[in-house]
Amino acid sequence: MENKVDISIIVGSRSDLVLLVKAVKILTELGVSYSLNIASAHRSSFYLRRCIRIAESLAAKVFIVVAGMAAALPGVVASETILPVIGVPVSSKNFSSLDSLFSIVQMPEGVPVATVTVGESGAVNAVILALQIISVGNEDLRDKLKTHRAKMSEIVVEEDLKLQRNGLEKFVEDLKSKC
Amino acid sequence: MENKVDISIIVGSRSDLVLLVKAVKILTELGVSYSLNIASAHRSSFYLRRCIRIAESLAAKVFIVVAGMAAALPGVVASETILPVIGVPVSSKNFSSLDSLFSIVQMPEGVPVATVTVGESGAVNAVILALQIISVGNEDLRDKLKTHRAKMSEIVVEEDLKLQRNGLEKFVEDLKSKC
Amino acid sequence: MENKVDISIIVGSRSDLVLLVKAVKILTELGVSYSLNIASAHRSSFYLRRCIRIAESLAAKVFIVVAGMAAALPGVVASETILPVIGVPVSSKNFSSLDSLFSIVQMPEGVPVATVTVGESGAVNAVILALQIISVGNEDLRDKLKTHRAKMSEIVVEEDLKLQRNGLEKFVEDLKSKC
Amino acid sequence: MENKVDISIIVGSRSDLVLLVKAVKILTELGVSYSLNIASAHRSSFYLRRCIRIAESLAAKVFIVVAGMAAALPGVVASETILPVIGVPVSSKNFSSLDSLFSIVQMPEGVPVATVTVGESGAVNAVILALQIISVGNEDLRDKLKTHRAKMSEIVVEEDLKLQRNGLEKFVEDLKSKC
Amino acid sequence: MENKVDISIIVGSRSDLVLLVKAVKILTELGVSYSLNIASAHRSSFYLRRCIRIAESLAAKVFIVVAGMAAALPGVVASETILPVIGVPVSSKNFSSLDSLFSIVQMPEGVPVATVTVGESGAVNAVILALQIISVGNEDLRDKLKTHRAKMSEIVVEEDLKLQRNGLEKFVEDLKSKC
Amino acid sequence: MENKVDISIIVGSRSDLVLLVKAVKILTELGVSYSLNIASAHRSSFYLRRCIRIAESLAAKVFIVVAGMAAALPGVVASETILPVIGVPVSSKNFSSLDSLFSIVQMPEGVPVATVTVGESGAVNAVILALQIISVGNEDLRDKLKTHRAKMSEIVVEEDLKLQRNGLEKFVEDLKSKC
Amino acid sequence: MENKVDISIIVGSRSDLVLLVKAVKILTELGVSYSLNIASAHRSSFYLRRCIRIAESLAAKVFIVVAGMAAALPGVVASETILPVIGVPVSSKNFSSLDSLFSIVQMPEGVPVATVTVGESGAVNAVILALQIISVGNEDLRDKLKTHRAKMSEIVVEEDLKLQRNGLEKFVEDLKSKC
Amino acid sequence: MENKVDISIIVGSRSDLVLLVKAVKILTELGVSYSLNIASAHRSSFYLRRCIRIAESLAAKVFIVVAGMAAALPGVVASETILPVIGVPVSSKNFSSLDSLFSIVQMPEGVPVATVTVGESGAVNAVILALQIISVGNEDLRDKLKTHRAKMSEIVVEEDLKLQRNGLEKFVEDLKSKC
Repeated sequence: MENKVDISIIVGSRSDLVLLVKAVKILTELGVSYSLNIASAHRSSFYLRRCIRIAESLAAKVFIVVAGMAAALPGVVASETILPVIGVPVSSKNFSSLDSLFSIVQMPEGVPVATVTVGESGAVNAVILALQIISVGNEDLRDKLKTHRAKMSEIVVEEDLKLQRNGLEKFVEDLKSKC
Repeated sequence: MENKVDISIIVGSRSDLVLLVKAVKILTELGVSYSLNIASAHRSSFYLRRCIRIAESLAAKVFIVVAGMAAALPGVVASETILPVIGVPVSSKNFSSLDSLFSIVQMPEGVPVATVTVGESGAVNAVILALQIISVGNEDLRDKLKTHRAKMSEIVVEEDLKLQRNGLEKFVEDLKSKC
Repeated sequence: MENKVDISIIVGSRSDLVLLVKAVKILTELGVSYSLNIASAHRSSFYLRRCIRIAESLAAKVFIVVAGMAAALPGVVASETILPVIGVPVSSKNFSSLDSLFSIVQMPEGVPVATVTVGESGAVNAVILALQIISVGNEDLRDKLKTHRAKMSEIVVEEDLKLQRNGLEKFVEDLKSKC
Repeated sequence: MENKVDISIIVGSRSDLVLLVKAVKILTELGVSYSLNIASAHRSSFYLRRCIRIAESLAAKVFIVVAGMAAALPGVVASETILPVIGVPVSSKNFSSLDSLFSIVQMPEGVPVATVTVGESGAVNAVILALQIISVGNEDLRDKLKTHRAKMSEIVVEEDLKLQRNGLEKFVEDLKSKC
Repeated sequence: MENKVDISIIVGSRSDLVLLVKAVKILTELGVSYSLNIASAHRSSFYLRRCIRIAESLAAKVFIVVAGMAAALPGVVASETILPVIGVPVSSKNFSSLDSLFSIVQMPEGVPVATVTVGESGAVNAVILALQIISVGNEDLRDKLKTHRAKMSEIVVEEDLKLQRNGLEKFVEDLKSKC
Repeated sequence: MENKVDISIIVGSRSDLVLLVKAVKILTELGVSYSLNIASAHRSSFYLRRCIRIAESLAAKVFIVVAGMAAALPGVVASETILPVIGVPVSSKNFSSLDSLFSIVQMPEGVPVATVTVGESGAVNAVILALQIISVGNEDLRDKLKTHRAKMSEIVVEEDLKLQRNGLEKFVEDLKSKC
Repeated sequence: MENKVDISIIVGSRSDLVLLVKAVKILTELGVSYSLNIASAHRSSFYLRRCIRIAESLAAKVFIVVAGMAAALPGVVASETILPVIGVPVSSKNFSSLDSLFSIVQMPEGVPVATVTVGESGAVNAVILALQIISVGNEDLRDKLKTHRAKMSEIVVEEDLKLQRNGLEKFVEDLKSKC
Repeated sequence: MENKVDISIIVGSRSDLVLLVKAVKILTELGVSYSLNIASAHRSSFYLRRCIRIAESLAAKVFIVVAGMAAALPGVVASETILPVIGVPVSSKNFSSLDSLFSIVQMPEGVPVATVTVGESGAVNAVILALQIISVGNEDLRDKLKTHRAKMSEIVVEEDLKLQRNGLEKFVEDLKSKC
């Protein structure tokens, strides 16, 4: 943990950490600091509150909270802080992930959780959203995000151009060989 | 609040109280004491923990917790006590009540919530279940429950006998005039 | 429309405006400026892009976008700006509101929408979340939010105290007479 | 890309291309021209509008648009053209594909998307539907479709006759050995 | 019934006719001819096939089929004709309309049904889609559709301007007084 | 109750009886005898078994069982008899009736319940299905069913003819004035 | 195909045949004759009607119809015959099999389909239900069904006794080694 | 089976036993006695009632009942005893486990089933809940549960400390190598 962190990331279970690897790389690339903790709303609520307090004392600007099933964690963090809280629902084996999504998004009036896409794409989106939030008061970061967005756009265009050059069958073949 | 309570009932929002009127009458009839509090997991978590502590100090044996939408309340109570916690999902306008049900039943390993039927019938069932739990060590209460169960059974049989006497059309007519 | 706006609110259909009345009052109370537009992703996409550009030129810090059914609007706004976009799903008659929710929350990697509770409570939560985002760089606003949160907490506690004084039956009676 | 295209096919992500291989073969067999592009509603909206404009200038008669998750792409294409737009929902890991289906079919009044079966069968059905649409003003193509339909019918009958000859067990055995 | 019809509309139950009133007015306004029949896939399949044959002999270019619950009707029409078939799912009391939607959209490979929005908005969208299909070979009709689309766009913009003039509260008040 | 009954109808709750009024009229019209009982799987299981035994001793040929929510009743009847059991799921306020449907249709291997449409239409369909089952060994009844089916078909055709005569607007007006 | 058949089984797609292997063995064991056809409601409706007519001329007493996705087949068979029709929904990859179930069970008033469990267990249950229906007028077959039911019951009891002898761990080990 | 048992566990199918291995170990560790039976509500109802009677005569204090699909078993046990009944829904291939959950939780008024998490985690939670129920009148057991809860909490904290030491990438690597 560093002296200052911009983003505090909390996961409810160690198995959720796998979802974060790709997302966290974006933070490293853009030079944005973060802390990362495992802390369960139901199994270690005291420790969870301690993590939240530490993050606040390190001047964290936004929380990213990842949880599955009866995913109370993002809401509990939101009830303990006035900072914006982003919730990432973890895919679940049963109920086609509706349990995690509902437990995170359907917060009562007054205590919002900013819910994003389910699963690994959600972890990436949580990071992008956190950066967008921080960049509200940070022109430099906003420019970085614009560059990131532009690159993303270019990649889609380049893929289309490659599709035009190679044709569908070859493109699909290449795609399969990469997996 | 009394000096000793058998059951601590907590609702997440004052609007949930309507669901409890019928259920609480059973407790009064059987002479079982209870406390009743409004305390939100997300909006008054400090006060909630205080309610839980007081209930425990009054020797409560079981919690009944009523909540809707992203219904974290029953799980949060379960994480703060070692007593059995019964969760009653409140019907919700959106998502055909799946949000409340999933948020209550899908608890992680180690912190169970005993989830019952959605809505007002669930409140009644929560009270019956609480009485069943208390009666594990209370022969007297168990006898009362047996009598209650037997009466319930008799009512169904009596309704059937009435149906045999009156026929379908008259029975349905009487039913409609009662509503 | 003012010279500067902190929040740009866009609804996809005039019927969605009813949801906003309560939410917008919070902004007025806290003295936070906003613009409000009706602009459809599917029926007036050119005008929508114009609204987004104007909001950006007025230094808006965050978008709140309200839409129902195949609710593409929040995602389309998110694709046109680098500012944080909050999406409010509108309750729908069919599919128990799953259509609006999924169309807003399940954004692809790289273009997040911060999705909140469905319906009117969601509109309130969108406003609170927007204020939390703005207050990342605004101590004064953060203090106001803390006060707001504390009041909310007090209200729950006061309701509980009233319940203790009056008992369940009287409390429920009073509640019903208010509706 | 050719000088004239009958059908413009657009996919929202390169991974969706795999679904099209079988469908596109039908077009080649029947000698119907098409263009094929990767263009995201959320990640490359400018490029998407360019693809639509080019397709229109090449006299495309119908669009087929394939997308998953918060599948805004078919609706966005429909909002940019007056040509019929066919939407193919991609199977999704979470929410048992309801997210893609709802995001495509639940379009607001005035901007329809002709939604077909989810997944690879949907891609085939999109192509058949596109051909049916084009054949409204094309007797020759309609005859080809009738022949295609008649063949399809014959295949089912032939399978039944084979089942009568071989019996269930041998038929199932042969089926399994083919997979 | 007329000598020539452009669109054949079939509903599975007389109660579905209410959904069509608004949609059919668009056809009258644009001077497009149609026939309209009640014919059930399950209760009058012989009569249904007769309706389909008559429509084809009157040179109908597209079918619009409205049905609810186990809505086999659109698929059965699609199996009896090579013309494009548009399916409109009727809202259902149970299963939040999923039964009608699935029964219409999930057609097997080779026999597509162009499924649109559920309910009355779907009936309007079916008519617009039918007009888009017919206009593939009809410049005049396409121009009419473009005008219709442009008007629709203008209406949204005008509503927004009215909102800017009147403010939220007055706008919502006016809206409520209209209902 | 009569000396012999062809069909034994059992409902799980008196409130389900309303659903049966229309269905039972068909039996009266066709001169088919039936018994009708209220008996709960969960609240009066002993009485339920007695009803089943009596029905069997009166030579009942088929059971119709109506139940809602965790609708165990049809399955429990099926486990107690070797006669065919038809299950009618009752519409439920929560979970858009999925709870009743799943509890009835998803029986384990070896103990089927013939599940029909949810609600009042299901009660009618249960009666028709019961008559179809009885008519397997009863030519006379089968002829009556054929007449019933033919009449049903004629009604749809007559409605269509009326629609052709009166036009959509007058037809819908008449329909509304009847309700 | 034989001169007389008791049960006519129709599947909508050759891939559905795998589900029937286990179910059909029960018919062979009990000496009950059946015919088995592949015939699609959407792709070979003429041939389907021919299959139904042949089955009726061979004195079939009941239909078993297996279909997936927009599973119109059971309903279409039911609309073409007055014999009881049993519908077996096939598991589907998307929509967690709700599409097949709804398309089969939600039949309109007057044309019931006796819906059973989804998938392979459903095929077995369809056969048992068909036998129960035939045995309404066949004491001999009813006795066989009683024996079958008794055996099924014994198997469960024997498994329990084995569990008591071996203990959980060994029982589970044996179970796993069998798969 | 022992002379006295604290908990009676009943599963509806031998395949459900796999779910119990982990859960039952907790009982062994804490020295709590239990019986374990396979008994189906639908296939061996007589034997099931015998199991319930034996458990009661052995002074069982609580039932744990595991069942899938149309999971009537927990409700049937609840209808036969006045002891608390805990229901564990088994994951199902179809309907994303909603069938098991609804069949267990949606019990009618008066006969509650204490429903817990779906699947293996649910089996563990059922055991914990049973222990909490028994410990209402057993200080010694309650202390053991508190220790168990404290250990669980420590494990989460230790995992977090390990994450702080090792960093995300190494932690995830270790996690994967364990599976």
